[in-house]
Amino acid sequence: MVVLVTEPIVTPEKRIGAGRPSAPDREQRVLDIIETARSKRPRFKDSAVNMSHGAGGKATQTLIEGLYVPAFDSDALGELGDSGVVQIAGSSVAMTTDTFVVKPLQFPGGSIGELAVCGTVNDLAAAGAKAQALSLAFVLEEGLDAGVLRGEVDAIARTAADAGVSVVTGDTKVVERGLADGMYVCTTGIGELDPRSSMGTGTLQAGDRVLVSKTIGEHGTAIMLARGELGIESDVVSDTRSLWPVADALLDAVGSGLRCMRDATRGGVASALNELARASAVGVSVREADIPVTPEVNGASELLGIDPMYVANEGVMVAFVASDAADAALAALRSVPGCEAAAEIAEINSETPGMVLVETAFGGRRVMDLLAGDPLPRIC
Amino acid sequence: MVVLVTEPIVTPEKRIGAGRPSAPDREQRVLDIIETARSKRPRFKDSAVNMSHGAGGKATQTLIEGLYVPAFDSDALGELGDSGVVQIAGSSVAMTTDTFVVKPLQFPGGSIGELAVCGTVNDLAAAGAKAQALSLAFVLEEGLDAGVLRGEVDAIARTAADAGVSVVTGDTKVVERGLADGMYVCTTGIGELDPRSSMGTGTLQAGDRVLVSKTIGEHGTAIMLARGELGIESDVVSDTRSLWPVADALLDAVGSGLRCMRDATRGGVASALNELARASAVGVSVREADIPVTPEVNGASELLGIDPMYVANEGVMVAFVASDAADAALAALRSVPGCEAAAEIAEINSETPGMVLVETAFGGRRVMDLLAGDPLPRIC
Repeated sequence: MVVLVTEPIVTPEKRIGAGRPSAPDREQRVLDIIETARSKRPRFKDSAVNMSHGAGGKATQTLIEGLYVPAFDSDALGELGDSGVVQIAGSSVAMTTDTFVVKPLQFPGGSIGELAVCGTVNDLAAAGAKAQALSLAFVLEEGLDAGVLRGEVDAIARTAADAGVSVVTGDTKVVERGLADGMYVCTTGIGELDPRSSMGTGTLQAGDRVLVSKTIGEHGTAIMLARGELGIESDVVSDTRSLWPVADALLDAVGSGLRCMRDATRGGVASALNELARASAVGVSVREADIPVTPEVNGASELLGIDPMYVANEGVMVAFVASDAADAALAALRSVPGCEAAAEIAEINSETPGMVLVETAFGGRRVMDLLAGDPLPRIC
Repeated sequence: MVVLVTEPIVTPEKRIGAGRPSAPDREQRVLDIIETARSKRPRFKDSAVNMSHGAGGKATQTLIEGLYVPAFDSDALGELGDSGVVQIAGSSVAMTTDTFVVKPLQFPGGSIGELAVCGTVNDLAAAGAKAQALSLAFVLEEGLDAGVLRGEVDAIARTAADAGVSVVTGDTKVVERGLADGMYVCTTGIGELDPRSSMGTGTLQAGDRVLVSKTIGEHGTAIMLARGELGIESDVVSDTRSLWPVADALLDAVGSGLRCMRDATRGGVASALNELARASAVGVSVREADIPVTPEVNGASELLGIDPMYVANEGVMVAFVASDAADAALAALRSVPGCEAAAEIAEINSETPGMVLVETAFGGRRVMDLLAGDPLPRIC
């Protein structure tokens, strides 16, 4: 039985191993789910677009694998990473794009402009590339206060300067009042792959370790609470930041021991693990007790009924490293300011290819599948 | 006196030289306007965003030069081309981005998907670069018919394949019903600068010629009429197409005789000429009688009260060439399928830097300034 992320994770009957069916029954259910997940590439059969297609979970995966990949027939896109890689002048250049539609535009710990720079810088960092150039495309709503625009332009300029990347080209479209919620921002970034990197989804093997660079779930939680719809007071702030220092530290410390990285945004760490498990045809065993979460995020997640593993981050790198490089990688992570809480949370196995399983604190095991719905829309 | 493009160009009193003030008066007015236009960089002082900020005219220029360029302090952006150029692995790589918000999504002669590919391919072509990789970012409206999405994905894939460019990375966001008019599409493209090119806005000199690759005004006219608000029946179809074959033919035929190129989209050929006049501090003298316009576009423009020189194209290259290369350039253009109506329409001068002046068929002279308002919103 899958934990539905739209329901509280504390509901015991939703937990394999905690819901008290007999052990053989539980095991059979897990095996059934594994069998289903291993089946062929999903087909896009929906009749209309719904919010879950943008949530980074199962519906997004179906859209990408079922519609985009077959249509574009592109090697780079087929690899399903956060970035594509293209050969330019004999060099491997990573390219990534993201539109930011976050609501509200400003939130504790950041704003759409900072997010738009960091999100793209981080997708490149996850591919092992330092961002060298950004493009910036605004869709502005007629009537948007010029001060808000000015503030976001300044935020973009400041964040780009901090990350050492230039905005080299741009575009502005204006749409009628009532459309676009103030502004949408699309940033695209390019950067040469770092020569220290030999990353690839095909390099993962049993025994490899999975590390997260800091505590999880802060961005999505901060956005949800900032909307004020829930009447919850909280000090949770977004973790929006550039992850290039994290990538740089890992490449320096373990070089080819770094198998691959994922920026755990929409869909959270759980989705990043699932993507990797599918792309590399390996299994992932997560140790629930080792996941770093602040008490504030934990508390808010319980109230919201959401597992923090599915909540978006904007400053968490998930790193997959060789087992003999794990200690050095963890030390390198913890040396990066803001990453003192980095932790090893999971191990790669060959028994359950395509699957993420969680060993609960109670000794049970449950499937941590891709998100089926969209409990947190418009968080990035 | 400036011809207001929101009024019919046939109104005689709006024409310098046709409105019958005495010749010295007319000349003084032209000189006054020239003096104003030469003044310093515009400042962005509006209190809110309005539709004209996205129209490619004066307000867009103010936004770019008054807000973006000072904020981003980027050499590439400061050049104000359709693309920025960045050094990657010792090579000059052009990068460009555009969001497409056209309404309706499908129109005679094309659709948003074709437009999204061609628009970006063409901005790179204008910079002298064949597109090598595209990124694709969708903002989809909740409830969008899946068949419409599928159709546009197919259109993008087909158009990209025709243009010889790969879609290497993408992103999809979904926003709530009512927010995005079906879909917005942001494409970003990169490509190495062609070694045959030595283009730059600084290379323009008096005596250089200005060519357009085909008849003008078709895209914007087709979109306006497709909205059906005007009750005009017409056969005008969008000219959406890849302009790389045009750039390639010109580079082949005249090499360094090609000073620079502009893809004449939003704001039309008039805006492309104005941008160049400002960026290169040269004057442009347009011969009205030589502008190629189909009778259908001419007729629709008169009814709409719009000068076709301000109407968007999605398949018209404006080429600035050395005078001794003009004949070869024109022959090269006319050899490209669909460009049989290519024409030389203007000459560069040093007398009126920053200004575009039109010699009318009646022997008068008028200023063809940047568009002040936005008579044609959401055409690309």
